[in-house]
Amino acid sequence: MSNSTIKFYDITVAPAILGKGSSPNTLKTRMCLNYKGIPYQTVWVEYPDIEAVCKEIGALPTGNLNASWGPYYTLPAIHDPSTGTILAESALITEYLDDTYPDTPKLFPPGTRALQLAFIDAFMSKLGSMWQFILPLGYPYLSPRSQEFYRKTREAWFGKKLEDIVPTGQKREEEWAKVKVGFDAIDTWFKKANTEGGPYLLGANIAFADIVVASFLLFFRQILGEVSPEWTDINAWSEGRWEAYLQRFESFKIIT
Amino acid sequence: MSNSTIKFYDITVAPAILGKGSSPNTLKTRMCLNYKGIPYQTVWVEYPDIEAVCKEIGALPTGNLNASWGPYYTLPAIHDPSTGTILAESALITEYLDDTYPDTPKLFPPGTRALQLAFIDAFMSKLGSMWQFILPLGYPYLSPRSQEFYRKTREAWFGKKLEDIVPTGQKREEEWAKVKVGFDAIDTWFKKANTEGGPYLLGANIAFADIVVASFLLFFRQILGEVSPEWTDINAWSEGRWEAYLQRFESFKIIT
Repeated sequence: MSNSTIKFYDITVAPAILGKGSSPNTLKTRMCLNYKGIPYQTVWVEYPDIEAVCKEIGALPTGNLNASWGPYYTLPAIHDPSTGTILAESALITEYLDDTYPDTPKLFPPGTRALQLAFIDAFMSKLGSMWQFILPLGYPYLSPRSQEFYRKTREAWFGKKLEDIVPTGQKREEEWAKVKVGFDAIDTWFKKANTEGGPYLLGANIAFADIVVASFLLFFRQILGEVSPEWTDINAWSEGRWEAYLQRFESFKIIT
Repeated sequence: MSNSTIKFYDITVAPAILGKGSSPNTLKTRMCLNYKGIPYQTVWVEYPDIEAVCKEIGALPTGNLNASWGPYYTLPAIHDPSTGTILAESALITEYLDDTYPDTPKLFPPGTRALQLAFIDAFMSKLGSMWQFILPLGYPYLSPRSQEFYRKTREAWFGKKLEDIVPTGQKREEEWAKVKVGFDAIDTWFKKANTEGGPYLLGANIAFADIVVASFLLFFRQILGEVSPEWTDINAWSEGRWEAYLQRFESFKIIT
């Protein structure tokens, strides 16, 4: 690695099941870098250290969680020594990479920034019911320090104990049905892209919005487990779209 | 009008204040037709007649309101005698017009269908809190027959009397604050478009998503009144973006 290699700040989880680096948010940036073929070096950060590391390198708070929290720091972040740029937030990082490395494939083709960001908003909104099934599952793969931080923050978001977040019984069925409604809505958008030659949202080429979709789906699959009833369900929905889609991104998720 | 002129099915309201034809959904299609310069003839339909008219001409139910309602018919719809096509739903109509009249400006440029539909979903979702301020205001401008239908359907949607839908007191302030949060989110997408040369979402040219935004804003302005406290607020938000944006669409809302 030369001194001008980009530093990519990712979140550490235990390598056991998750293959290290399994935050869907940081995975977006890893996939962007891999897809573009831009060399980088990963810096692993534990959850409770994110704020201190961001402040130390000069990354701004992304603060997108809840206004009442005050400044809130998140990863991914990058430091690009070749331009002296330090940036947090995956969409901003992608715009920066598109602009700074114009010979790499663009993830925000001209005229798509507004629509791609709105797509991501809509995508996240459709999967709002998914998190209660997902977030508690990551806990065992964290270090004790990270577990403490993760428990505190996630329990504050949900207003309940980690162990009580995954719904059970009738409530589970109702909430899982909402997840399917969300996937069905997302599928209608992909069907539109299919009428225009897509496997991807803009057509033949991967866009940032695709990387966002793939990052979350890969994270879901990884943390639920490929043979789990939940992933088996997801796989059966939308005529098998999601597993087929993910296969196109396998090579971009590698940790270098 | 020749026999091959497109028939455009719009919803009748009293001409007094609303200038006739003020459903934001039908306004989308009127603006698409006007923007493209495609001749058409308006067929006015009262609310309680929408289902019968759609069935009579053979327009399919759009059914997007609530699965438990069963087939649900909505306007806009068009009948294009030159191809024998009958279509309901503004996005489908726009795709049809793009495809059938390729010499007119495209509202879904290639590769944007999926993202534009997701944008519209996100846009509508951000303005979810707006409807309680808006829907009851249209009531006085309907015919007695339409009033009866409008009251029945809207009261079922909201689960309360028309007269109780607009929030009051502290609740009003809280709900109006949510409307501002929604407009702020939409403004962030437009700011992204501005970095790419927009006044419009894709840049220099109007897209269908712009027509959707403009149709709803024009409807809000019309029904709230330009000098209402609510429109004055909206006008002050987002550094005056909305009124300036609407001026670009004034010529496309005309009723021919």
